Amino acid sequence: MILEKINSPRDLKALHESELPLLASEIREALLKTVSENGGHLAANLCAVELTLALHRVFDTPEDKRIFDVGHQSYVHKLLTGRREEFSTLRKLGGISGFPKRSESEHDAFGAGHSSTSISAAAGIAAANSLCGKESYTIAVVGDGAFTGGMIYEALNNCADLERLIIVLNDNDMSISPNVGGMSRYFSKVRSSVKYFAFKNGMKRFFGHLPLGNAIIKLARKVKNSIKRVAMSQNLFEQFGLNYYGPVNGNDEKHLERLLSEAKDDKKCCVVHICTKKGLGYPPAEERPDLFHGVSGFDIESGTIKSNGLESYSERFGSIILDRAEKDGRICAITAAMPDGTGLSPFAKKFPERFFDVGIAEEHAMTFACGLATEGMIPVFAVYSTFMQRAFDQLIHDAALQKLHVIIALDRAGLVANDGATHHGIFDTAFISEIPGVIFYAPNSFKSLEECFDKALQADCPVVIRYPKSVDFDTEGFVIGECVDIRDYGEAPKSAIITYSRLLDSACLAAESLAKRGIATRVICIKRLSPLPIEEIKGALCGIENTVFAEEGIKNGGIAQRLCAELTESGDIKKIKYKILAIDGIFPEHGSNGELLSLLSLSPKGIENALEELCNEA
Amino acid sequence: MILEKINSPRDLKALHESELPLLASEIREALLKTVSENGGHLAANLCAVELTLALHRVFDTPEDKRIFDVGHQSYVHKLLTGRREEFSTLRKLGGISGFPKRSESEHDAFGAGHSSTSISAAAGIAAANSLCGKESYTIAVVGDGAFTGGMIYEALNNCADLERLIIVLNDNDMSISPNVGGMSRYFSKVRSSVKYFAFKNGMKRFFGHLPLGNAIIKLARKVKNSIKRVAMSQNLFEQFGLNYYGPVNGNDEKHLERLLSEAKDDKKCCVVHICTKKGLGYPPAEERPDLFHGVSGFDIESGTIKSNGLESYSERFGSIILDRAEKDGRICAITAAMPDGTGLSPFAKKFPERFFDVGIAEEHAMTFACGLATEGMIPVFAVYSTFMQRAFDQLIHDAALQKLHVIIALDRAGLVANDGATHHGIFDTAFISEIPGVIFYAPNSFKSLEECFDKALQADCPVVIRYPKSVDFDTEGFVIGECVDIRDYGEAPKSAIITYSRLLDSACLAAESLAKRGIATRVICIKRLSPLPIEEIKGALCGIENTVFAEEGIKNGGIAQRLCAELTESGDIKKIKYKILAIDGIFPEHGSNGELLSLLSLSPKGIENALEELCNEA
Repeated sequence: MILEKINSPRDLKALHESELPLLASEIREALLKTVSENGGHLAANLCAVELTLALHRVFDTPEDKRIFDVGHQSYVHKLLTGRREEFSTLRKLGGISGFPKRSESEHDAFGAGHSSTSISAAAGIAAANSLCGKESYTIAVVGDGAFTGGMIYEALNNCADLERLIIVLNDNDMSISPNVGGMSRYFSKVRSSVKYFAFKNGMKRFFGHLPLGNAIIKLARKVKNSIKRVAMSQNLFEQFGLNYYGPVNGNDEKHLERLLSEAKDDKKCCVVHICTKKGLGYPPAEERPDLFHGVSGFDIESGTIKSNGLESYSERFGSIILDRAEKDGRICAITAAMPDGTGLSPFAKKFPERFFDVGIAEEHAMTFACGLATEGMIPVFAVYSTFMQRAFDQLIHDAALQKLHVIIALDRAGLVANDGATHHGIFDTAFISEIPGVIFYAPNSFKSLEECFDKALQADCPVVIRYPKSVDFDTEGFVIGECVDIRDYGEAPKSAIITYSRLLDSACLAAESLAKRGIATRVICIKRLSPLPIEEIKGALCGIENTVFAEEGIKNGGIAQRLCAELTESGDIKKIKYKILAIDGIFPEHGSNGELLSLLSLSPKGIENALEELCNEA
Repeated sequence: MILEKINSPRDLKALHESELPLLASEIREALLKTVSENGGHLAANLCAVELTLALHRVFDTPEDKRIFDVGHQSYVHKLLTGRREEFSTLRKLGGISGFPKRSESEHDAFGAGHSSTSISAAAGIAAANSLCGKESYTIAVVGDGAFTGGMIYEALNNCADLERLIIVLNDNDMSISPNVGGMSRYFSKVRSSVKYFAFKNGMKRFFGHLPLGNAIIKLARKVKNSIKRVAMSQNLFEQFGLNYYGPVNGNDEKHLERLLSEAKDDKKCCVVHICTKKGLGYPPAEERPDLFHGVSGFDIESGTIKSNGLESYSERFGSIILDRAEKDGRICAITAAMPDGTGLSPFAKKFPERFFDVGIAEEHAMTFACGLATEGMIPVFAVYSTFMQRAFDQLIHDAALQKLHVIIALDRAGLVANDGATHHGIFDTAFISEIPGVIFYAPNSFKSLEECFDKALQADCPVVIRYPKSVDFDTEGFVIGECVDIRDYGEAPKSAIITYSRLLDSACLAAESLAKRGIATRVICIKRLSPLPIEEIKGALCGIENTVFAEEGIKNGGIAQRLCAELTESGDIKKIKYKILAIDGIFPEHGSNGELLSLLSLSPKGIENALEELCNEA
């Protein structure tokens, strides 16, 4: 095993280039082994093996800074930068993160998780180096998918005067799903019109075996690049004032090393355009890179992806919107590059003309939806909670202020387990409920999701419906109210657990256990977070003396604090002891949701203990 | 007066083209008259007179939709669409808004205020029209400055397949200040390389006086445009799959009408690139378009801009950072196209190498700052509160999660008077205090601003310092604490007003008045909003029975609710009556700050009444 001897990028530089193909295949094996067991991002890492090797052989991290966009491609880098032995703990509680992380290694220059940030961060680092007189390099590796996100252009617009900044465009014609839009077509055109591959092979055939052959090839390449730069003087990147190299085969390590060295010599900020094959080396992933983008685990032999076989909220949402769209031609669906993850693929297939995949462009998606709404359509933007943070201003400014009827289906609300800190949907309860004129639902079951969606269709303002990636919850035994559901565990409870969304499950288990031990407990589940159904909640609190509000969201600005203040202002709180369990001032890390809930005191046991303590207080 | 006869765009179409130059000059006079009195956006409107006339003569609003980017150029449109008589109420309470507004007129198809949203909205409208089989046009008018904002590219990437969508690029080489970055240089190159003006004038000289001359010119122009389209096949917009017309002189109304008609005939989504002169027709504004971008009122004759002559927080901040930067070479300053508004111009002049104007690109600015911070610089991003909403995700994801030492100088926090609903900085208290690991200061005087800034320099995490556009406040008579300042009006007060930031002024006036009438009142001013200095506040509340928390910010998720919940959880609230005065579920409109505070019950009188009521309650 060569890989076993690689403890830092320095060891990599000592290898002879003839050893690299074997190393690459060992890395691919290591990737398959861990990702098939732990789940994670496979296809993007498989395509980035040669690139990662070449970067580490040409540049010197941690002095040179390597930044990942999104970070889906960081596994190979982790394997080669002293984290090989812990790699089996990938995405597990206490283990290494699925994304680059500054606190994990000095080789991770900048964390990632959301798209299109890398060039901005790299520009900041390059500018700092220049101010400090440091001559180290900054390399941002960006997938072509990230070019559907606007931040990339904001950054490109600010790079022309920076030095020692290299932007590697890793072009595999995919983000998670195939890319969309004009820029993707442009990249295709560049790929096919510049016959670089043919040139390279031809050169090798003619000169490769001659004495001085390599020098000639090198010279010729330089000339060719100059010619190409002139010919393509209207190239997108050159319009932004940057130098441009490529496109080249990004799975040819030797060639990559040479081109990166050339870019290194350039000093001026430049773009190195490489074309790679997503999933390379594992046939099932080569065939279906979308399925093997992020997987929950799979059988290596057969390529069968593991699944619990249960319907998720995303899938149920997909069925509901499909059904309603059959009856109402005004309903449109929008996704920011996540047709599968959001459950919209069936809609896309059935109503392609009413389906809009806008790329990784949440800001645009929101305002585009508003435009549709002004003309009487009913746009539904399905987006993960964590990514909706990107469209906060557009939700305030374009949707709420104008009272436009747009629906946001907020998926992955709450903890998202192994993806960790960059992906948890724990801020939406606070940032959405602060916006005037937005109705904000938190269904607690598939049935309730359906009811909320139907109410949303009837509204005349923005409506946000948040739900987790979970299976259905059975609300049998509950008294179902307009906005609040109630269930008593034990007779005439004086204690209550208030909650919403998926945490209802924990709350019920806690109440059940408390009731068994003689503490009758009412579970109160709020289904509309904004406007808060204050009278209905007050009704539910009738006779209650001790209350724990359990919230799978951030504490500050969250629903529990808001309810507390409303009860105080109206004088009702004086009779009630009120304790808030929520995510308080920290970013939860990765792990299973069960593990994380335990750590956050939001497990059934945590809720139970908190309420019991409250009851026992003087 | 021709203008007096224009009550709708229909009247405009009835005019003979020979009447248009006179009308244009009447419009410019009307603009000068009102803006010199009420303040507002002058230079951009002066440059857009001919464009607005041409658009209304070629297209039919409200059937065709005209969308403004940012909306600074909407005054001429308002004058021509039935709002001429109310134009003198521009930006005044109850008067017409300084920005396009759907609720104001059916001719305002989409509201604006923040940059780079117009193409997204227009794309939504065009897509809806196509779904409904409507053949009306959608026209987005976008300044070149908006092309420094990423949303524009997200939208361009999604336009190639849309029809009857026309993007007018109004290129005056300015946003508020001169534009920055690679894209701006690219536009300059396009402007100077394509000698369209020369061509046009030459054609006119040769053919203009012949019979059939105009037909020949028209034919020749078509051929020329076709040739140009081929020659510029790598034009930026064509890389996004859009057709491209121009550049042409955007202050030549006749020519504009012809080009817009051509674009109209095209059907396919296209970009019409026009070059205009900012401030045209008013020499002081032509000379200093930056000064006359947004003005508070001026003397038409002399061009002297009105000013109260008093130093603002922005200016003081500019002095403080300049002073500290002289002593500490790590301090960098970043602005998103607002060097003047944020008070950073002196810094830019003194330390150009440490000053970064990144364009209207708040997302990039934030992550760029984070990049600088990783290398040991101390970046200070000065930005208006309302625009910081754009960088919410980047603050969470790149700054707070990574614990990077970046400073955000949050200007225009609170109400911004006449700019109105799209510009009030009333959401920051909620959306910033929800983010873990961010220190959030609210200085109440220039001295306190200086202290907060110095503390921020010493921190090791993101720090946000919010302040309004106001003059200094005198805290003499206050007991100055670490994070809380206190002043008693009257002996042994049992009542208190809690507040922060600029509202301290109202609070003191209320307390003074109450004390005079026998209700001794303590004023408690919080200077650190997050982490909330709860023990210090509790100390300040010692002996208090009635409390009004007055907040110039949104109620839900705000500081008052948070404090209330913290006091409740610790059991302290039971002894205290607690009332919150804040902006509750509405978007305040435009008007003077005094008028708005009165409407929101946040004036001295409003606070006084609330506290008195509370005292009188059973």
